Amino acid sequence: MRGQEPRSTSSCAACKLLKRRCTPNCIFAPYFRSDEPKKFAKVHKVFGDSNVSKILIEVPEEERGDTVNSLAYEAEIRLRDPVYGCIGAIALLQRKMIQLQHDLALARACLAWYTSAIGSTDDDRVITEPFGGLSADCG
Amino acid sequence: MRGQEPRSTSSCAACKLLKRRCTPNCIFAPYFRSDEPKKFAKVHKVFGDSNVSKILIEVPEEERGDTVNSLAYEAEIRLRDPVYGCIGAIALLQRKMIQLQHDLALARACLAWYTSAIGSTDDDRVITEPFGGLSADCG
Repeated sequence: MRGQEPRSTSSCAACKLLKRRCTPNCIFAPYFRSDEPKKFAKVHKVFGDSNVSKILIEVPEEERGDTVNSLAYEAEIRLRDPVYGCIGAIALLQRKMIQLQHDLALARACLAWYTSAIGSTDDDRVITEPFGGLSADCG
Repeated sequence: MRGQEPRSTSSCAACKLLKRRCTPNCIFAPYFRSDEPKKFAKVHKVFGDSNVSKILIEVPEEERGDTVNSLAYEAEIRLRDPVYGCIGAIALLQRKMIQLQHDLALARACLAWYTSAIGSTDDDRVITEPFGGLSADCG
């Protein structure tokens, strides 16, 4: 194989898509490998290469990997849900949290009732039940 | 005041920022009022006017208001947290949810123990406690 140089694959996925020469100091190259073209394509479609580049320049180098990953995930969600994007995911999580907080408050109220009941006689329990009708929910 | 026409203020915030003439069929005009320049400035800085325009064209007209609001909120979060943006907010909510799920599971396990204990005698309770050491957590 003497004389055969490996074919240059130095262009990153961003420069390939943007049809430009990938330089050694390309801001995208460390985060958009040439074999992951979809990752840059999605980020480019939602944020645009210019904005992504500006964001990357703005953050410290050691945080650029996390930045690119969060942009890629955010772009993925926006492409799947063009109307709500990440905000839809946040709203869904908030609704689930409110339900969990409600369930936890109920469980704790029930626990408080049982704790009080277990420390009293059967007759006391009827008298001291602290929440109207709660014992039914605690069944 | 005869002969004095009110000064035209028909340019939307997007066209003002992009320094272009706002036409009657401007895609941005219904959602970026001229008196809300920051809303478009933020969306433009993160997504770019071209991408926002493409997203708006892609979604049904009745969903464009929600789309713009979610883009504005997403942009706001990305400008405040350039590294993680919305994904940081999602990760935080997920961590809170996991904690709530853990607390709820514990509260329900305690409830199950109390339910079983309350239906038995004091002596039975010691014997039938279903979770090793749980009664300490349920205190």
